[in-house]
Amino acid sequence: MAIADTPFRGPVPPLPHGFRMGAVHAGIKRNATREDVTLVASDLPATAAGVYTTNLVFAAPVALDRSRTPGRGFRGVVINSGNANACTGARGLEDARTMAAMAAKELGADGDAVLVLSTGIIGEFLPMETVAKGIRSAAAALGCDEKSAFTAARGMMTTDTRPKIAGASVATTAGGCTLFGMAKGAAMIGPKLATMLGVIVTDAAIEPDDAQKVLAAAAEETFNCVSVDGHMSTNDTVLLLANGAAGGPPLSGGDLEAFGKALHGVCETLARDMADDGEGATHVMRIEVSGAASRDAARQVARTIADSPLVKTAVHGADPNWGRIVSAAGYAGVPLDPARIHLKLNGVPLFEGGAPLPFDAEAVSASIRDHRETLIELSIGDGPGRIRFYSSDLTADYVHLNADYHT
Amino acid sequence: MAIADTPFRGPVPPLPHGFRMGAVHAGIKRNATREDVTLVASDLPATAAGVYTTNLVFAAPVALDRSRTPGRGFRGVVINSGNANACTGARGLEDARTMAAMAAKELGADGDAVLVLSTGIIGEFLPMETVAKGIRSAAAALGCDEKSAFTAARGMMTTDTRPKIAGASVATTAGGCTLFGMAKGAAMIGPKLATMLGVIVTDAAIEPDDAQKVLAAAAEETFNCVSVDGHMSTNDTVLLLANGAAGGPPLSGGDLEAFGKALHGVCETLARDMADDGEGATHVMRIEVSGAASRDAARQVARTIADSPLVKTAVHGADPNWGRIVSAAGYAGVPLDPARIHLKLNGVPLFEGGAPLPFDAEAVSASIRDHRETLIELSIGDGPGRIRFYSSDLTADYVHLNADYHT
Repeated sequence: MAIADTPFRGPVPPLPHGFRMGAVHAGIKRNATREDVTLVASDLPATAAGVYTTNLVFAAPVALDRSRTPGRGFRGVVINSGNANACTGARGLEDARTMAAMAAKELGADGDAVLVLSTGIIGEFLPMETVAKGIRSAAAALGCDEKSAFTAARGMMTTDTRPKIAGASVATTAGGCTLFGMAKGAAMIGPKLATMLGVIVTDAAIEPDDAQKVLAAAAEETFNCVSVDGHMSTNDTVLLLANGAAGGPPLSGGDLEAFGKALHGVCETLARDMADDGEGATHVMRIEVSGAASRDAARQVARTIADSPLVKTAVHGADPNWGRIVSAAGYAGVPLDPARIHLKLNGVPLFEGGAPLPFDAEAVSASIRDHRETLIELSIGDGPGRIRFYSSDLTADYVHLNADYHT
Repeated sequence: MAIADTPFRGPVPPLPHGFRMGAVHAGIKRNATREDVTLVASDLPATAAGVYTTNLVFAAPVALDRSRTPGRGFRGVVINSGNANACTGARGLEDARTMAAMAAKELGADGDAVLVLSTGIIGEFLPMETVAKGIRSAAAALGCDEKSAFTAARGMMTTDTRPKIAGASVATTAGGCTLFGMAKGAAMIGPKLATMLGVIVTDAAIEPDDAQKVLAAAAEETFNCVSVDGHMSTNDTVLLLANGAAGGPPLSGGDLEAFGKALHGVCETLARDMADDGEGATHVMRIEVSGAASRDAARQVARTIADSPLVKTAVHGADPNWGRIVSAAGYAGVPLDPARIHLKLNGVPLFEGGAPLPFDAEAVSASIRDHRETLIELSIGDGPGRIRFYSSDLTADYVHLNADYHT
């Protein structure tokens, strides 16, 4: 299998019809060069679907959005970075509601027609005057050009080193539609900042339940198959807004299926790019597990390998220390017969039938060192379950980023 | 609650009657100043019990010892460091058997009267000639003095920076007995080296099933409540040998209970010392979870906090970033109501009733910085389940240790 050297960094794809975006620095983040309030506006009422963190300690915006989606009539999303509005109790929920209402007012919409995303420090109340000022400025800055879209994606960032953007267009019987997606996330929770967020907008017309179904399916195989440090955020959210501006009736049948595939591609690009931009990462690990009893079992094995600090440091050190990978699989909590494990590292077979294979350690080490992506292929039997999982390596820079910022 | 500044480093406790130990450098490790073959001999046939890794990819010595314990008639334990004899298939199992037989021969015992422990690199076959030479030399070096015991404990080490030793004496109706325990482990798997191993010897007389029962109970609350990096080894083993040299009938009733308590103390000292000596660690984290539905639920929450790289780096950086702790509890997979969580860090209340409490961040940061032990107390309800869990922080040195050793 080919090993990718360069993560996708294409030009900014066009915004779908009827969407505008804007972002400004309001003052939630100290650094005045960083946008911290982003507004996504739909000129037409849009269907919205969402998938959310399963963390039982979930943030106020998650509680709010979860109560509103799936549904129709949405006019936008307001996003702040620098403060997660998490662990903030009843006051936090009231702040999230107020934030949505303020954005809705700027868009001339009802107070509950806007969704909210927050990312940043946990356990501090939102500076609502600053947020209000930011929303007014972001509304004044709304545009549908490339720069507006890029700035919006940048406005979501916390410790990310670059915006994550992906787009697609789909041919449908009604003539076609466009998708634009943006995401942030470089650790499940970064140094006092937080979270994986994604917003995907499309000018397709989709019924709320269908939107929820295709989004959940795509997220399950993409965003739910990426881990930087295994720490699940209180705020993780991915939203899909579909405003129908492309014309035609709501997608169904083959059109919906084609849309689902394009959505999957957009989500996979964004998810992989998050692992690639993991805090301090020097490698993105692609872990392909096959032969498991089910997809969930395959994912469990892949996630255990992905989250092992010993596997992550071995990849960082270009050390083909495959015992760490096999032993991680052994404690994943999934039934497993070591004699049936096959392991390849960057295409080179290392372990088979319960015993090691002779291999050129120097060559494998060089192959890890010389490529941005490290490919781990593990087959654990002849079951139908398989998964592709992305993670990043563990470096001293990750430790410095997360330890050396003091309160 | 008081915060301990200094891990226990007492003088070497005396060996129980009828036990001798010896260790030598045979050549399995490259560094000629490091012992790599250790022999523990019992002059009388001893009862033996063992607890083992639950990793499905388990090493040959684990397979061998598990098939032999609990039982009676044991004359010793042979231990090598530098090679884990894991992922080595049928040949590895044969090597472990041969290793036990060679040691038994030196002790004038049957081939199956010796147990085997191995720790070190995974996936390489044991150098059996070197092992044979080491066993002969270790047998010649057997002694019951302080130096022999200390050298034996040092011979188990891989990336440990110091031997872990603990002892106890118990008054019984037959006049009393002594325990001596030694352990190694600084990461579940270190840089190409491996594993948590423990050997506890006592001159008490104990029936095999009772020995198994008290060992399992003690390990469950001590060795099973410590994590350096969350990576479960293929070789983890703790053995208890009881040779009855103290005289009297097998322990029962109150005597067995008193012995169990002493054993628990020995195991807790060894377990805590492993976390304290975690690779690159600058802090040992003591995590006390209470109010859970069960002890297992409490342990699951504690382990999730202990293994979060974000919690570990926050402690390293003396950052009272409590959101990381609360959010880790939220994804532990245990039912949990955020509104009922109480969190204290080094005795200072930080989170209660779903909302943050005002606190002096500088003072808490200083308290983390100035103490070797960081105390995290988390109450999650009013259930009876509670646990004490030890872990270490995550530092750039851990990454260097595990990334910068190339094959």
